[in-house]
Amino acid sequence: MWRDLRPVGRHPGSGGYRRYAWTGADAECRAWFEEQARDRGLDYEVDRNGNQWAWLGDPRRGDAVVTGSHLDSVPDGGAFDGPLGVVSAFAALDELRARGARFDRPLGIVNFGDEEGARFGLACVGSRLSSGQLTVEQAHRLTDGDGMTLPQAMEAAGYDPDGIGADPERLARIGAFVELHVEQGRALDLSGDAVGIASAIWPHGRWRFDFRGEANHAGTTRLVDRRDPMLSYAETVLAARREAQLAGAVATFGKISVEPNGVNAIPSLVRGWLDSRAEDQQTLDTVVAAVEEAARDHARLHGVELDVVRESFTPVVEFEHALRDELARILGHGAAELKVPVLGTGAGHDAGILSGHVPTAMLFVRNPTGVSHSPAEHAAEDDCLAGVTALADVLEGLARR
Amino acid sequence: MWRDLRPVGRHPGSGGYRRYAWTGADAECRAWFEEQARDRGLDYEVDRNGNQWAWLGDPRRGDAVVTGSHLDSVPDGGAFDGPLGVVSAFAALDELRARGARFDRPLGIVNFGDEEGARFGLACVGSRLSSGQLTVEQAHRLTDGDGMTLPQAMEAAGYDPDGIGADPERLARIGAFVELHVEQGRALDLSGDAVGIASAIWPHGRWRFDFRGEANHAGTTRLVDRRDPMLSYAETVLAARREAQLAGAVATFGKISVEPNGVNAIPSLVRGWLDSRAEDQQTLDTVVAAVEEAARDHARLHGVELDVVRESFTPVVEFEHALRDELARILGHGAAELKVPVLGTGAGHDAGILSGHVPTAMLFVRNPTGVSHSPAEHAAEDDCLAGVTALADVLEGLARR
Repeated sequence: MWRDLRPVGRHPGSGGYRRYAWTGADAECRAWFEEQARDRGLDYEVDRNGNQWAWLGDPRRGDAVVTGSHLDSVPDGGAFDGPLGVVSAFAALDELRARGARFDRPLGIVNFGDEEGARFGLACVGSRLSSGQLTVEQAHRLTDGDGMTLPQAMEAAGYDPDGIGADPERLARIGAFVELHVEQGRALDLSGDAVGIASAIWPHGRWRFDFRGEANHAGTTRLVDRRDPMLSYAETVLAARREAQLAGAVATFGKISVEPNGVNAIPSLVRGWLDSRAEDQQTLDTVVAAVEEAARDHARLHGVELDVVRESFTPVVEFEHALRDELARILGHGAAELKVPVLGTGAGHDAGILSGHVPTAMLFVRNPTGVSHSPAEHAAEDDCLAGVTALADVLEGLARR
Repeated sequence: MWRDLRPVGRHPGSGGYRRYAWTGADAECRAWFEEQARDRGLDYEVDRNGNQWAWLGDPRRGDAVVTGSHLDSVPDGGAFDGPLGVVSAFAALDELRARGARFDRPLGIVNFGDEEGARFGLACVGSRLSSGQLTVEQAHRLTDGDGMTLPQAMEAAGYDPDGIGADPERLARIGAFVELHVEQGRALDLSGDAVGIASAIWPHGRWRFDFRGEANHAGTTRLVDRRDPMLSYAETVLAARREAQLAGAVATFGKISVEPNGVNAIPSLVRGWLDSRAEDQQTLDTVVAAVEEAARDHARLHGVELDVVRESFTPVVEFEHALRDELARILGHGAAELKVPVLGTGAGHDAGILSGHVPTAMLFVRNPTGVSHSPAEHAAEDDCLAGVTALADVLEGLARR
């Protein structure tokens, strides 16, 4: 399975993956998903928002057990973030069939579209649309770097965008959703466990800082005559690190866009994106407010205008305690006989979006370096296999109820 | 004349010009130049490096008087930087013909290719090639943002790149080169003069700072586990301003490139370009060394690797004193009867490149705000006309000798 998926969307220069929603690489990943479903005799369907589903048993019976993740990537992402959950889903089904397991509930495998938001700037678009957290009007305003809207991109990829929107009927069929994911930190590495269960997802958001100054010649404009937005941006990057450190949170400026972006021109516009997350909402609010204040103070002193726009926000997600405890119980008695740690995470997931609508849980597989969103992201083969067995145990335990 | 040129390569969003070398907008500017030459019955030619020439009289007679500038622009540049010198050259010729002026020397008007270096990262490519300051081998290594080399771009635009290289025979025909240019500072505005003469061009250079860290997930990577190159970049931007201020120089980070440039990814690479200039070489060396030291200190502390590459450097250019004094004398007695100030500049020009090979001088036209490399760049119509008259006086005075 891995072999066919590995070369898709891989950039020869960076070695990282560039699988952006509704591009050619994404289409190849989707074709791979459909092939896996059909090879196993599963019923394949694409929902109105472009999410792919593979079914064993009729989902219209309701109370389905669903697993899966996503196949798209961040720019130059790793091989595991997303695909590990989809590949493990098919592998777990294979293991359950080999065991001769019985399924009293419909079993589904899903590939949610556009989880990373690398193209349109908003994460978890597929699950947000289905759950109604992203409205059709908002979706029509999402544009990529070339000015193409999400519906235009879907249409260009051969999907009918007219039907996008909330899909409560489909979600109501799901009795439990379990997403397996490579861990994106080092908690399992530090505790010495191959697999863990998620407790909560930290609240997190993205803020766009637009610093507007005055384009001018870098050689002839006196320093005192400048309104250089790059200076305010730099000050804000350092303030974000400082405030996050003080609060025990994280804050990152990882994306920037500069106009005119010429070596010998003072910029007219520096646009930087702040990603910040913390254990609780109050801490996050404090950090972001302090960063914005530092930015405003510097901008005012240098004649730079500042607009701050919150582009997305996801409150804290506490996964359902009953399902979480059931997973722990199943894994303690299953083939893997695991005593699994329960851990929080700073990363957003489709599981977090769905958790407001469907009983939802997550399994994490150890990542020895904690590196993620990078070609260096890794999970050992033994740990991946332990993840498959744990997922198979969970699906079997849930499906038999 | 202005009317035909004004819309070419103008970006509807920014109102600025995007006339990059060997693009469609550049081709339109070149067609305009050829038309102006032919309309006036001048001999038109393109040299081996793509520079355009219009001749009154046979240049092979030697000791020619040449004026002109360039038509390409920085990203979102203004209307005057470059074009004012070319438009004024044709207008001055018209004025001299109306005066019935006599020309004992061949008179040439030139449009040097790729002066701003917006596409291939090196300024004054046309004049550098002709003067041998850029070798053919170096020119073949110049690439644009899409990986296209300069010769490939020339070929795509319909020019034969096989002949590029030093052109000493053509330069030897020039007895004097005078470039008129909009001032890119406020010296003339402060002194109350419409026109000035250049004394010198400050030494200046471009340095590329490559900060390499480790791409990682912005939500799950603890601050202590990060190697975030954006932090070192930000520290360096602020250091550059500080050091330039201390030394009375200028230093600017106006261009940046980030990988992977995702909102939720700590960057693996932040590449920033430093443009710095100072009155003398020693001051410039001191500033750049201090900026580099600050960058290295911060990078070392944060596990970030730093490479600094000097991409271009132009030593101080003192314009020939004899020609400069002759210009002052001509303008004092000419139709404009100017008492013109003599001023230095931080901007590089084709005139600076040529000055090592040909007696060279520059005229500046007042820029009331000093703003340059921006759509806000401006020169009043009266001042532009004063510039044309001053240039006509200079050409007449030199051509009659």
